[in-house]
Amino acid sequence: MDPNSKLSEEKVFKDPVHRYVHVRDKIIWDLIGTAEFQRLRRIRQLGTTYLTFHGAEHSRFNHSLGVYEIIRRIIDDVFHDREHWNNDERLLCLCAALLHDLGHGPFSHSFEKVFHLDHEDFTQAIITGPTEVNAVLRRIGDDFPKKVAEVIAKTYENKLVVSLISSQIDADRMDYLQRDAYYTGVSYGHFDMERILRVMRPQEDQVVIKQSGMHAVEDYIMSRYQMYWQVYFHPVTRSAEVILTKILHRAKQLHQGHYSFKHQPAHFYSLFEDELVLQDYLRLDESVILYYFQVWQDEEDPILSDLCGRFLNRRLFQYIEFNPNSQMKMWMELNHLFKKAGIDPDYYLVVDSSSDLPYDFYRPGEEEERLPIHLLMPNGDIRELSRESEIVEAISGKKRTDHKLYFPQDLIDRLSSKRKVKEQIIQLLSSGKN
Amino acid sequence: MDPNSKLSEEKVFKDPVHRYVHVRDKIIWDLIGTAEFQRLRRIRQLGTTYLTFHGAEHSRFNHSLGVYEIIRRIIDDVFHDREHWNNDERLLCLCAALLHDLGHGPFSHSFEKVFHLDHEDFTQAIITGPTEVNAVLRRIGDDFPKKVAEVIAKTYENKLVVSLISSQIDADRMDYLQRDAYYTGVSYGHFDMERILRVMRPQEDQVVIKQSGMHAVEDYIMSRYQMYWQVYFHPVTRSAEVILTKILHRAKQLHQGHYSFKHQPAHFYSLFEDELVLQDYLRLDESVILYYFQVWQDEEDPILSDLCGRFLNRRLFQYIEFNPNSQMKMWMELNHLFKKAGIDPDYYLVVDSSSDLPYDFYRPGEEEERLPIHLLMPNGDIRELSRESEIVEAISGKKRTDHKLYFPQDLIDRLSSKRKVKEQIIQLLSSGKN
Amino acid sequence: MDPNSKLSEEKVFKDPVHRYVHVRDKIIWDLIGTAEFQRLRRIRQLGTTYLTFHGAEHSRFNHSLGVYEIIRRIIDDVFHDREHWNNDERLLCLCAALLHDLGHGPFSHSFEKVFHLDHEDFTQAIITGPTEVNAVLRRIGDDFPKKVAEVIAKTYENKLVVSLISSQIDADRMDYLQRDAYYTGVSYGHFDMERILRVMRPQEDQVVIKQSGMHAVEDYIMSRYQMYWQVYFHPVTRSAEVILTKILHRAKQLHQGHYSFKHQPAHFYSLFEDELVLQDYLRLDESVILYYFQVWQDEEDPILSDLCGRFLNRRLFQYIEFNPNSQMKMWMELNHLFKKAGIDPDYYLVVDSSSDLPYDFYRPGEEEERLPIHLLMPNGDIRELSRESEIVEAISGKKRTDHKLYFPQDLIDRLSSKRKVKEQIIQLLSSGKN
Amino acid sequence: MDPNSKLSEEKVFKDPVHRYVHVRDKIIWDLIGTAEFQRLRRIRQLGTTYLTFHGAEHSRFNHSLGVYEIIRRIIDDVFHDREHWNNDERLLCLCAALLHDLGHGPFSHSFEKVFHLDHEDFTQAIITGPTEVNAVLRRIGDDFPKKVAEVIAKTYENKLVVSLISSQIDADRMDYLQRDAYYTGVSYGHFDMERILRVMRPQEDQVVIKQSGMHAVEDYIMSRYQMYWQVYFHPVTRSAEVILTKILHRAKQLHQGHYSFKHQPAHFYSLFEDELVLQDYLRLDESVILYYFQVWQDEEDPILSDLCGRFLNRRLFQYIEFNPNSQMKMWMELNHLFKKAGIDPDYYLVVDSSSDLPYDFYRPGEEEERLPIHLLMPNGDIRELSRESEIVEAISGKKRTDHKLYFPQDLIDRLSSKRKVKEQIIQLLSSGKN
Repeated sequence: MDPNSKLSEEKVFKDPVHRYVHVRDKIIWDLIGTAEFQRLRRIRQLGTTYLTFHGAEHSRFNHSLGVYEIIRRIIDDVFHDREHWNNDERLLCLCAALLHDLGHGPFSHSFEKVFHLDHEDFTQAIITGPTEVNAVLRRIGDDFPKKVAEVIAKTYENKLVVSLISSQIDADRMDYLQRDAYYTGVSYGHFDMERILRVMRPQEDQVVIKQSGMHAVEDYIMSRYQMYWQVYFHPVTRSAEVILTKILHRAKQLHQGHYSFKHQPAHFYSLFEDELVLQDYLRLDESVILYYFQVWQDEEDPILSDLCGRFLNRRLFQYIEFNPNSQMKMWMELNHLFKKAGIDPDYYLVVDSSSDLPYDFYRPGEEEERLPIHLLMPNGDIRELSRESEIVEAISGKKRTDHKLYFPQDLIDRLSSKRKVKEQIIQLLSSGKN
Repeated sequence: MDPNSKLSEEKVFKDPVHRYVHVRDKIIWDLIGTAEFQRLRRIRQLGTTYLTFHGAEHSRFNHSLGVYEIIRRIIDDVFHDREHWNNDERLLCLCAALLHDLGHGPFSHSFEKVFHLDHEDFTQAIITGPTEVNAVLRRIGDDFPKKVAEVIAKTYENKLVVSLISSQIDADRMDYLQRDAYYTGVSYGHFDMERILRVMRPQEDQVVIKQSGMHAVEDYIMSRYQMYWQVYFHPVTRSAEVILTKILHRAKQLHQGHYSFKHQPAHFYSLFEDELVLQDYLRLDESVILYYFQVWQDEEDPILSDLCGRFLNRRLFQYIEFNPNSQMKMWMELNHLFKKAGIDPDYYLVVDSSSDLPYDFYRPGEEEERLPIHLLMPNGDIRELSRESEIVEAISGKKRTDHKLYFPQDLIDRLSSKRKVKEQIIQLLSSGKN
Repeated sequence: MDPNSKLSEEKVFKDPVHRYVHVRDKIIWDLIGTAEFQRLRRIRQLGTTYLTFHGAEHSRFNHSLGVYEIIRRIIDDVFHDREHWNNDERLLCLCAALLHDLGHGPFSHSFEKVFHLDHEDFTQAIITGPTEVNAVLRRIGDDFPKKVAEVIAKTYENKLVVSLISSQIDADRMDYLQRDAYYTGVSYGHFDMERILRVMRPQEDQVVIKQSGMHAVEDYIMSRYQMYWQVYFHPVTRSAEVILTKILHRAKQLHQGHYSFKHQPAHFYSLFEDELVLQDYLRLDESVILYYFQVWQDEEDPILSDLCGRFLNRRLFQYIEFNPNSQMKMWMELNHLFKKAGIDPDYYLVVDSSSDLPYDFYRPGEEEERLPIHLLMPNGDIRELSRESEIVEAISGKKRTDHKLYFPQDLIDRLSSKRKVKEQIIQLLSSGKN
Repeated sequence: MDPNSKLSEEKVFKDPVHRYVHVRDKIIWDLIGTAEFQRLRRIRQLGTTYLTFHGAEHSRFNHSLGVYEIIRRIIDDVFHDREHWNNDERLLCLCAALLHDLGHGPFSHSFEKVFHLDHEDFTQAIITGPTEVNAVLRRIGDDFPKKVAEVIAKTYENKLVVSLISSQIDADRMDYLQRDAYYTGVSYGHFDMERILRVMRPQEDQVVIKQSGMHAVEDYIMSRYQMYWQVYFHPVTRSAEVILTKILHRAKQLHQGHYSFKHQPAHFYSLFEDELVLQDYLRLDESVILYYFQVWQDEEDPILSDLCGRFLNRRLFQYIEFNPNSQMKMWMELNHLFKKAGIDPDYYLVVDSSSDLPYDFYRPGEEEERLPIHLLMPNGDIRELSRESEIVEAISGKKRTDHKLYFPQDLIDRLSSKRKVKEQIIQLLSSGKN
């Protein structure tokens, strides 16, 4: 197939963030129409965040179109005729942008933690396996799916292409910051993307930003910082995440213990038995998960039933700040007291940690090497961002970590027959409050 | 319980449309926390519209908070100390506003059509039946649930209260126009609500608008008109709606014909047998419906399986304009040809109609009596809106109706062995195109 | 000079309405830098409107860049490669768009009325006369200034070009509706311009709109209607306009009566003597006018001094609705009473009228022939808008006129020594109130 | 007069930033109507910034209403019934907020520098002197004007009131950041003011912010930082400022040298002779200044004439970065060369510096003591912001300074008869570019 095959008429999607998403390439249109891509409509972009910010009900479908549109604008409006840019890579970039999140499952974070999955593996598998997406991509060439997968996996040889799709200032981050801000309604997350796009320049092995756009980039980094701590790591969201994780743990444990479910969890079998295959994975969307949570409310197992009810009806855990260094003793005492009170601490007393590094320059050898943002100076030099920006330098490399201890206040309040244990628990928890 | 019991600290919800939703009354906070209200998170506000406008993934939970907030602002900021307003009705209004959509099920429009349900009946049943919502409301007084239900049913004796909750310019409409515009991203749906709220005035038996705000009201009516035709009646949305309706029809038909489902549709039994009880209804949320659509894709019945796949993967029907007066003959011929081609026209050749009346003055005796919008003139007179506004007069009472004929282009394209029938169908359909 | 001569690097202006205004053509950049164009910074777009809507302090410079940018987007993003469009007209269109308001003076409306001027004549004179603008334009070709002037005067032979610059849906109107809404802060004035631009199509002798964009056009027409009555014809603005007009009348009258000004009105001489030449006109900006108003506050003439103080310190006239058919008698009586009270009715009792026609189809032979908006139907037909749109049909051709009678309430209130006359005046005026 | 005297009906101003400005107090309405307050309409908020950002044409009138409205919301919506707040101070705060910028003249920054004026002195003088504003304020009480002046001068005894009006997070800053962002159209300047207002709490001697609002405050500080460097210190704006300053210098110098002006600068006499009195100051608005600049274009003095033409027609100076430590020698050489070339370096070779301190904690004894922002912790403690916020700590106390050297590139380019000097100048200047 001609890779440049165009639709007879451009299609547009009305998008609240980018106003319009424009599709002219037949291949992009067809990818959007595949079952695997449409499935992203049934997976929320921000998992449990809608329980904190009720507006955050948008799906990964939504975000994927946005990332595609940003890359399209960079290529068609800015890079098109510039040195270092080879327009033969255009369609590859567009496909990688559109499909970069294809392997996400429902509530990815919890699922990946409990079942030791990696959504990136599934993205690769969907693109290269026996899927509708793969069939569409192969119309360009037999090795095209593999190339798309490589770009997403950051192993593609042209590092300029890789850095366009994945870097500390890529289309993915630019879309989600703005989109998540739009749907939650928070006032963070705004920065002048149009300006940043206009000053992006292709270099031999990376995308750089003209120095005149440095302040827009600073603004983007501050937006990112605020979104992480104000939205993504919101303690109420994490509370829902903790409960979700414990539901999955419990269900797996019950299955492994040959518990007899009233309603057979057929969709989960291969997952529970660590034999998950692609076709089963693709059937796990949020509707299916929420369906099971509803029917599991009627299970005999009190922990599974209680946790599912908590999640569906938003009866979340409370929390206090927790310092793993100084408060381990308190935590162990609480464990002991919870057991005495008949509340299983494995499910009802949970430490959860978040940490974020707002920006970092290149530190070779670090666990997770991050490509720094580079500025193109008026004289043609390339300089790393934190050397030019005082604001960015001030926060560069500063990792911030936050631990919280989650527990069900309502269960504690109801410990009427165990007055002494109850008092001890309440005292310990309030001593931990600051 | 003291009806004015307040939270120790005001709670706020971040809302993209109204910036913040403020809750000070304990009763409102507790209503939001009930299982029946949280269930609204699992029902999309705009049903199948997200298949046309990908941003429209917001839930009825979202909208219900918004309607509450508008009513709260009208009462606390505008009506509070005014003549004709009795602040003892405040909590009643807030509860009615919050709960007015409580009985909505998933994809209400289709469900109500196929199963002859009425979401308003369920709203009444939830408020007055054995539910968490009812228990919270009864803390105010034994007859309080009934009063809330009456306000929503428009039978409450104080007509001022009724007109605040339901009229041609009520909080419900003002919220959804703005909210649906925000999430779809369309540029219609904007009007100066802050202005309208500021010029609302309570009268003995209705809410009126000061004449100085007439132009803001005109703008609201135009927004409403545009939203109906550009968003709510969008032909692609209606195509999805048609398929959804046909899925429900088919499943019911199969059940009545004692078809043996691979996966027992337990959630649907009482529905299929016209014996739906409240507790079953409350379990029917969108997750459950989409779960069934997924498993039904694997059913033997080719129609059920095909339609479910179409809905989930957005392989919708095409359409042409249809004139029921002049094209009945064409439609009958197409019916005949579809049968010949082996495509069941009962499921695959569907006429769907939309109609809207943007505004109307009072026409006693009409099927659906609409309370007109009244202006309060500087001299104290009350005048009906269309007598003052040329723009509104111009469109007043003008009902617009639109019919379309939906069909699966892909099935027709694949009729390779029936070339003649195929050609005839294609010719008839294209003759209908304008 | 090469008409396509480009700047070495694109220049951008940050614009609140269009985000960025892009300039790549050297000729455009140089036109912006001329003294005649920079002068537009000293002339407010909306004249006296800032006395009603304090945000409306933006200049014609601001608007002119906006109109240029809209035309640039239509040509570069939509028309570029299409049939009927000859890209050789591009620069001509851009120049005409940028310069279309070049001849505006300060508070144009009043000046034109009092001194029988026409800003369009001055636009022509500046473009074709001995000016910096003319010198820049002549670098393209000796007849280029004339062509630009013809496009603005609507006499250019290529009617497609003319209709792009001036029609019932042109870049001028689209910019000012949005811009004036932005700066005043009103919620009218919003419509989906991006959508309208995308569906504009060049035809042999006009620009048409694809039928799929009809609703965006309806929205535009409603915006226009609301802006006229809510902003442009606001009675407070008209009150300031009335005073301004009377100041100019008075100063001219004094000059003609050989009144000896303390401060010689040198800038006004040629104007007062009907011998205004281009170079004098170009020196008349708002700073100059306001400077004179300030110094005239100290003139001996009580009327000139009073009116100038009123304008500068916003002590405006009050108003009542006025019906020229039924209230002429009242008006004559008031004239008489004002004279008795020692208040000159020529300056202090003023009828002012506004009228607008929101949209009209083509009515040959009418005083002001308006080119209708044409839709391009899917089958290639061209249809006039009001035949397709019910909303537009409803308001099409409906001219609305409004008359008000302005007077200084404070002077009347101070008529203490003439109690009877005062009472009669007050009674007559209040009888006119509705 | 009763200080609580209300208007019979609330007045509203449509405001693009705060949607509506609400006025209920008669005293506020009357202050707005005074000549001294209306004069603020003729003074731009951002001086010469409109020559860089064409949208920045808004006046100090605009901003003053905004500051008033923010204070009104804090008092009426948040402080009203709280401990530590005495509502008797309400009207005092509203008046101080409205009038805090009353003494600003046109292009304050340059005027104050050249003529050693201080707009704060004039604010005091207008409030306490023989003015319309003073007359209105005295209706509340004889000492009321003095109290208003003290609040603005920060000497008022109730430090809570002072900190409400002037602090590192006061209504003044919150309004101008948002307003200037709105009119320029930049994407900086956004923060969640509604959130900040809601978490402000009165304490005995200061306003504090509840810790839960810390991130909104961080966002505000970052907005402030970006606005300073991106907008307020924009090098093009400073170039216009440099020229303006030099015009004023030149005119004063000519006057002192008994130069005979063609057009007598009557408005400037007392200013030039360091005998400026209040009534003369009040007559100096931007219209007057721009009027003189226009007529001075025709003066014989080539420097005055040239500089005025540059300012009016935006033919600004170019600039290079300048390091006062290492580049003094270069600067002296350039001075020498400019003289040789016949270009007066006193007017055409200007170093201009900007510096800003984004936030600082309290440093007793410093030249300009700044009141730090204090957080109110959940346990009732008060903590200084930079101790809680890592981001703020990172930039706290870090003063940033920037120097630039301005010169007229066009004059240098035209030095054709002095080829060698020209080359030397060009070489020196380009060596300074980085």
